[in-house]
Amino acid sequence: MSKGLFIVFEGVDGSGKSTQLDLLNKYLTARQIPTCATREPGGTPVGEKIREFLLDPVFQEMQGHTESLLYAAARAQLVAQVIRPALEQGTVVLCDRYIDSSLAYQGYGRGLDIEFLKKINELGTGGLQPHITFLLSLPPEEGLARSRRTKSADRLENEAMDFHRRVWTGYLALARQNQSYVVLDARRSIETLHEEICSVMGGMMGV
Amino acid sequence: MSKGLFIVFEGVDGSGKSTQLDLLNKYLTARQIPTCATREPGGTPVGEKIREFLLDPVFQEMQGHTESLLYAAARAQLVAQVIRPALEQGTVVLCDRYIDSSLAYQGYGRGLDIEFLKKINELGTGGLQPHITFLLSLPPEEGLARSRRTKSADRLENEAMDFHRRVWTGYLALARQNQSYVVLDARRSIETLHEEICSVMGGMMGV
Repeated sequence: MSKGLFIVFEGVDGSGKSTQLDLLNKYLTARQIPTCATREPGGTPVGEKIREFLLDPVFQEMQGHTESLLYAAARAQLVAQVIRPALEQGTVVLCDRYIDSSLAYQGYGRGLDIEFLKKINELGTGGLQPHITFLLSLPPEEGLARSRRTKSADRLENEAMDFHRRVWTGYLALARQNQSYVVLDARRSIETLHEEICSVMGGMMGV
Repeated sequence: MSKGLFIVFEGVDGSGKSTQLDLLNKYLTARQIPTCATREPGGTPVGEKIREFLLDPVFQEMQGHTESLLYAAARAQLVAQVIRPALEQGTVVLCDRYIDSSLAYQGYGRGLDIEFLKKINELGTGGLQPHITFLLSLPPEEGLARSRRTKSADRLENEAMDFHRRVWTGYLALARQNQSYVVLDARRSIETLHEEICSVMGGMMGV
C-alpha cells in the first residue's frame, strides 16, 4: 500500500542512533528527497503525553503489561497520525525506535512475554513493519566503560550491566530473525557509520 | 486459581448499575462477606491518570486503536493491582464495567474491530473473566426519553440515539454469547432489581 520507505534506527542509549538518523535526514534532504523524522515514544501530542506519564516516578506500581500497552498505544497513535500518512505521500520516514525497542527492553531485558509484546504491537500498528532497521550494535561493556574508569562497579551497576547485556543479546536475536536488519558496529566513527548507512540507502533508492 | 468471586455490572450510563453495585456491596458487607468495589477505567492511581487523559478534550485527534489500548492498559493495571490480589484472598470483587464495556461502546457502538478489542483485553488481563455479569438492560429510547419530553429530537440527538441503540444491541449480543450473563430489565424499581441480584448471588453463595 505504501509508496514511501519506512526506516527504523534501533540500539541502546548512547549507541549513536539519533546522530545517524539526523545525518541521514540531512543527506536525503540535500538530495531533495522528502523525509519525515520522528521518535518513540512520542512524536504526537498524545504520544508525548504518554511518554511523560511513562517517565513519571510517581507511578512506581505500574505493571509490566500496563506499561507495554501504553507504549503500544503511543505507537498506534504515531503510526496512524504520522507514519502511515507520510508513507502514503511517498515520504522516507526515519524513526528513532519502533516495535523492536519494546521486544528488546521489555521482552529480552525485563523478561515480559515476547509473544504478548509482538501481538499487542501488531494489533496496534495494523502490522506495519519497517523496510530497513539499522541496528547500532554496541556491547554493553563499551556503553558503561566510561563510569568504570573512575570507580569500580557497585551492585546496581552490575545489575544494569546484566540488563543491558540481555537487551543487546535480544537485539542480535531479533536481527537474526528479521531480514530487514542491517547490523552496524557502533564502535566505529560517526563518518564511517554514516557512509555505510548512505550506501545501503543508495542501493535501495539509487541516490 | 481464584477463591473469590468476580462480579461485573454492565449497562449504559443511567441504567442504574452503580446504584445496584452499591446496594449489593452493602448487602454482602452486612453478612460479613469481604468485598472489594471498584470501577473502570480507573480504580488505581495509574488507571485514574489514564481515565483523566481519555476524557481530556485537548486530544481530539486520538485514534480508535490508541484509545482502546489505553483502556486495556488501565484494565491490565486494575486486574494486576486490585482484582487478582482480592480474588486470591477470597474476596467478592464488584466491578463497575469491564471488558464488555469496550466491546459494546467501541466495538458495536463505534465500529472498531471486535476481535482486535477482545485480543488486546485478553492479553492485558491474562484472560480473567467474570463469574457473573449483571447487565442492566435499558432500551435507548427510555434513556433519552426525558429530554424528548421538553423538545423534539434534533440531528445530534438522533445520532446519539443510533449510537446508543448499537451499544444496547451489542450488549444483548454479548449476553447471548456468554453464559455468565444475567440480563435484568432496568426499567423495574431499584428494590425489585436489588432483590433479583441478591437472589442470583444467594443461589451461588448460599447467603
